[in-house]
Amino acid sequence: MNKTGVAIVGASGYGSRELMRILLGHPGAAIVAATSRSDEAPRVDALHPSLAGRIDLVCEPFDADKIADRAGFAFLGLPHTASLEVTPALRARGVRVIDLSADYRLKDASTYADWYGHAHTDPAGLLAAVYGLPELYRPAIPAVGLIANPGCYTSTAILALAPLVAEDRVERAGIIVDAYSGISGAGRSPKPAFHFPEANENLVAYNVGRHRHTPEIDQVLTDVGRASGPDPVEVIFTPHLAPIDRGIHATIHAVPKGPAVEHDLLDLYRSFYADSPFVRVVAHPPGSKDSAHTNFIDITLRVVRGRVVILACLDNLIKGAAGVAVQNFNLMTGSPETTGLI
Amino acid sequence: MNKTGVAIVGASGYGSRELMRILLGHPGAAIVAATSRSDEAPRVDALHPSLAGRIDLVCEPFDADKIADRAGFAFLGLPHTASLEVTPALRARGVRVIDLSADYRLKDASTYADWYGHAHTDPAGLLAAVYGLPELYRPAIPAVGLIANPGCYTSTAILALAPLVAEDRVERAGIIVDAYSGISGAGRSPKPAFHFPEANENLVAYNVGRHRHTPEIDQVLTDVGRASGPDPVEVIFTPHLAPIDRGIHATIHAVPKGPAVEHDLLDLYRSFYADSPFVRVVAHPPGSKDSAHTNFIDITLRVVRGRVVILACLDNLIKGAAGVAVQNFNLMTGSPETTGLI
Amino acid sequence: MNKTGVAIVGASGYGSRELMRILLGHPGAAIVAATSRSDEAPRVDALHPSLAGRIDLVCEPFDADKIADRAGFAFLGLPHTASLEVTPALRARGVRVIDLSADYRLKDASTYADWYGHAHTDPAGLLAAVYGLPELYRPAIPAVGLIANPGCYTSTAILALAPLVAEDRVERAGIIVDAYSGISGAGRSPKPAFHFPEANENLVAYNVGRHRHTPEIDQVLTDVGRASGPDPVEVIFTPHLAPIDRGIHATIHAVPKGPAVEHDLLDLYRSFYADSPFVRVVAHPPGSKDSAHTNFIDITLRVVRGRVVILACLDNLIKGAAGVAVQNFNLMTGSPETTGLI
Amino acid sequence: MNKTGVAIVGASGYGSRELMRILLGHPGAAIVAATSRSDEAPRVDALHPSLAGRIDLVCEPFDADKIADRAGFAFLGLPHTASLEVTPALRARGVRVIDLSADYRLKDASTYADWYGHAHTDPAGLLAAVYGLPELYRPAIPAVGLIANPGCYTSTAILALAPLVAEDRVERAGIIVDAYSGISGAGRSPKPAFHFPEANENLVAYNVGRHRHTPEIDQVLTDVGRASGPDPVEVIFTPHLAPIDRGIHATIHAVPKGPAVEHDLLDLYRSFYADSPFVRVVAHPPGSKDSAHTNFIDITLRVVRGRVVILACLDNLIKGAAGVAVQNFNLMTGSPETTGLI
Repeated sequence: MNKTGVAIVGASGYGSRELMRILLGHPGAAIVAATSRSDEAPRVDALHPSLAGRIDLVCEPFDADKIADRAGFAFLGLPHTASLEVTPALRARGVRVIDLSADYRLKDASTYADWYGHAHTDPAGLLAAVYGLPELYRPAIPAVGLIANPGCYTSTAILALAPLVAEDRVERAGIIVDAYSGISGAGRSPKPAFHFPEANENLVAYNVGRHRHTPEIDQVLTDVGRASGPDPVEVIFTPHLAPIDRGIHATIHAVPKGPAVEHDLLDLYRSFYADSPFVRVVAHPPGSKDSAHTNFIDITLRVVRGRVVILACLDNLIKGAAGVAVQNFNLMTGSPETTGLI
Repeated sequence: MNKTGVAIVGASGYGSRELMRILLGHPGAAIVAATSRSDEAPRVDALHPSLAGRIDLVCEPFDADKIADRAGFAFLGLPHTASLEVTPALRARGVRVIDLSADYRLKDASTYADWYGHAHTDPAGLLAAVYGLPELYRPAIPAVGLIANPGCYTSTAILALAPLVAEDRVERAGIIVDAYSGISGAGRSPKPAFHFPEANENLVAYNVGRHRHTPEIDQVLTDVGRASGPDPVEVIFTPHLAPIDRGIHATIHAVPKGPAVEHDLLDLYRSFYADSPFVRVVAHPPGSKDSAHTNFIDITLRVVRGRVVILACLDNLIKGAAGVAVQNFNLMTGSPETTGLI
Repeated sequence: MNKTGVAIVGASGYGSRELMRILLGHPGAAIVAATSRSDEAPRVDALHPSLAGRIDLVCEPFDADKIADRAGFAFLGLPHTASLEVTPALRARGVRVIDLSADYRLKDASTYADWYGHAHTDPAGLLAAVYGLPELYRPAIPAVGLIANPGCYTSTAILALAPLVAEDRVERAGIIVDAYSGISGAGRSPKPAFHFPEANENLVAYNVGRHRHTPEIDQVLTDVGRASGPDPVEVIFTPHLAPIDRGIHATIHAVPKGPAVEHDLLDLYRSFYADSPFVRVVAHPPGSKDSAHTNFIDITLRVVRGRVVILACLDNLIKGAAGVAVQNFNLMTGSPETTGLI
Repeated sequence: MNKTGVAIVGASGYGSRELMRILLGHPGAAIVAATSRSDEAPRVDALHPSLAGRIDLVCEPFDADKIADRAGFAFLGLPHTASLEVTPALRARGVRVIDLSADYRLKDASTYADWYGHAHTDPAGLLAAVYGLPELYRPAIPAVGLIANPGCYTSTAILALAPLVAEDRVERAGIIVDAYSGISGAGRSPKPAFHFPEANENLVAYNVGRHRHTPEIDQVLTDVGRASGPDPVEVIFTPHLAPIDRGIHATIHAVPKGPAVEHDLLDLYRSFYADSPFVRVVAHPPGSKDSAHTNFIDITLRVVRGRVVILACLDNLIKGAAGVAVQNFNLMTGSPETTGLI
């Protein structure tokens, strides 16, 4: 297989580490550049000791021209707003961009401004971007030049609810999403809440009703439900931290329209995801550990007292970030969707 | 302070260990007997190395006469159904019983039979027993001879919801309780789900809609709401395991009747629990670690998109078991409620 | 019991939190002041949510006069060198000081300068200070005005080795101390090595041969061995981090002088510590969890291929810091040594 | 690449799960059979939910003929002594065996009997077996029919010490190996010591001086040192449990013969392992997490007070079991040593 040159823009975070780990074993990709904002030009394996012996690359400052000379693709592992700064320059030079930040996810620039606290500066990019959740938007991905790679909580909630919303089987307002995330999801910057003696042996909610993934879940599920009904989806989303490295567990509650029968609904899910190799519709309550270190999402559901309870798990850094980015890369390069991921 | 002799019936579990740890520092209690079903008559500190240097006692087989000779109180740390076997004999001999199992919690014997799989054999005890949640039933506790000490998930959910139900501020059907427990709540018997390499780094739901604490939560909250309305409370309860030793975190969703304003509701809670020294109504989302190793329950709430989200945490072995048992003991012996617990 | 007023100077750290938790249940102490360097005058229970409902105190800036007005004792939970700044002022005003930092532990000022990187500015204090390890220096403690409270690794290693060194049963050079600490031992400031996703699921050595507890262990054990031989003790100390909150496990290797028999050596330990209520000489390898959340140290030993292997565990925040400080306080106030600690 | 049919004999354990996970991504292997002793013929993905969607195979009872029909290789993930029962039958049918148990590791049958408590029943196999540590025995591996795959603690200790022993740079008696293992190393059977509430937040030594990996370490290092000196290696090995899933951290102490200079010794290691792609000689103290989920071993060393302190980490299930098994498989099938492992 010919290898496509790829650049990792913003190489120091956990998502970028997972991405590089996957790409180093990918037969169709060659990491040709990595950037960081550090003046010290660190080696990639100094940033990520687990990659020692596998990658011999020094981080450089971001330079769109240099990247365009070497790479056909850039994966952006940048904080929110930083992606807005580099994406136009890369796209202008013909580099296809897979952005792991939230900068191109919300289609409405004012919603972005409301939730992220500053104006969106690349409306052209926003218009061009495709939301990179292959299970829902697979046909649109191969030809696109800019992927808004989805968030981790969002992919969990969206994939767990999409069949019910698409088929108009549940009420759309008041869907409850209680989700717990491993702490790698909070990034690599040390902060008090993530200090081991605070986070260990602790379960705690945060940003209740105010987490930025809320409008993203609403937007995508509303889009999924458009064909079957006019109402928008509005979730009540409560994120929590749990003392694990990796993984998200979401417990989701929806009120069915009409009677709900467990095995019928499970069949609906199996059918909906029949062509999606990374969705496992399972019979048992999945543990977050079953999908940790993989690109799978595990989903099941139960009917309790007439309500639907959906349980879903994925690895926040892989299926929730780096793995789905590689799914998108595969689709964009004409490779089998699972290349490098199984 | 004169010391009351107490017996620990079923001394090998985690709840009994916490109970003995607390009682060893309690100025009004002396542990005079401990029983276990082992033929080997183990020392208590061999069962619980953390108690070495503090207790010099050998476990003996259960013998109601011997206990009655020495102790005025018996705490039962037995598995469900085993309490039914020993309670009548102890009560007949004048020993006051604080039962930490579920055997006397459900007032309706047929509900007990349905959820625990065998008939209730002590209807007289069931009639006499008081549900030992001092925050709700304080006046009934001092004179009673048999306490049904509440479950851990149940105390979390009940105390988190009681003010809203008592004041008829929320719909009673379809209340959602998503709760995560530390694994000590599952007891001390090794099983695959609690094997460290399975449980660590894992989040998983279990017994969805079928956990035995469901009818207990329903029953007590229905009782709490009786004065303000006829409808029964029916919760949708989803328990989960989290890789922590101690603590429960419950995220609870209720639909308000009429407008819901956050600070009004918080005031309602503060007022409702004004005389309860172990309920802390806090402004921030409580971490389970804040109340771990204490007898406190921490509660806060948020209003999100017109719905009420309540967050509550306690230590499953203390406020959820041994600590509330000592609260009951204090009330029954006329001691200040906080004795030995702060 | 009359309560002695005590001040907590530097109240924001984990050691101070444990200290206040213990003192709040101590019948002979009343916390009358707490200081922090913050301009915001935080409430103590805002710094430490676990103490909510137990303490109603606002931190104030350090002022020796104000403390002397209210308190007879000051516990210093300050970083190294900061204790040097406040101790003389407190002592000049008649306040007895228990310093939890390392500032008064090394008797030789030049050793202090070498290992801590700056000159010692209070030679009078250094001369007056008693090393506050009651198991070794109990007689000197009651009358003293300044206690150098020992380090956590140091107490583990010293108590584990003292009987062998005092009786001259082992070679003094080349004693190996491999110790693992829970991460609360590293303090409360977030740093990359203590960020949950880095520290969790990780075991790592640090400061190999260069940890500042090395000269402290050497000094005290050399002092312990002075009566039985002239050689100084020199340990090879390798500290490690383990993903636990609390506890230290030390595995210590010494070469015996003459034949070593396991049960004889265990008897030696039992005899040596017969009057020390917080030393538990056990037969089994102690788990660090057995002594976590207690003021005990657990010690055992094995003879393997003619060498002595000693295993010792304690809680770094209690027996390794706050608990031993209260032991010292008890001795200094004429209370039973175990008051408030069991 | 042509795929070699491989059988997994004893598929239910953690080592076999890791092995299958690796082999499912290996271009030169096809898993054609899996066996378990269960009468229920479980699906492999029911035993290992993390493998769902990747393997469609049902476990069958062991039958040497059926395996020989389909597979050229058998990996044995059996408990000790069970390998002795199946290996002769497999070898008689021409199946090449990679045994992950200890049954063929100790060259002396009486040592085996002493440490494992029963006689060795396959002396011919014992004679034929090669110890499968490629870094030391690479030339002997390609042609062999039976591999004794090394233990996890043993590979850590042996690779950490081999350069010093081979070059006769350290005393051979009294080498100290203090090692901590993640709990997956204890296998998948629930037992009290591995029950989450016991193992979590705990550090504890076990089998001090009596662990079965002791004679294995001695034997291999003695063999490594044979060319440079007559003395046998005798280690003092103390294994511990730490609350992590995966990984071993060994801290090793040796007394140098002659002067020891850190960078010289590090150069010796780099040179010794120059052709070993999975040994990373690093400058910093390695965290066990750096090599977790990889087939690397990380090693560094320090000279402290004239003694050598070596630090080494690997993943007990991969480099300590399944990964090295695949290294051996690669060498035996003429594939690059890293195939499927990076």
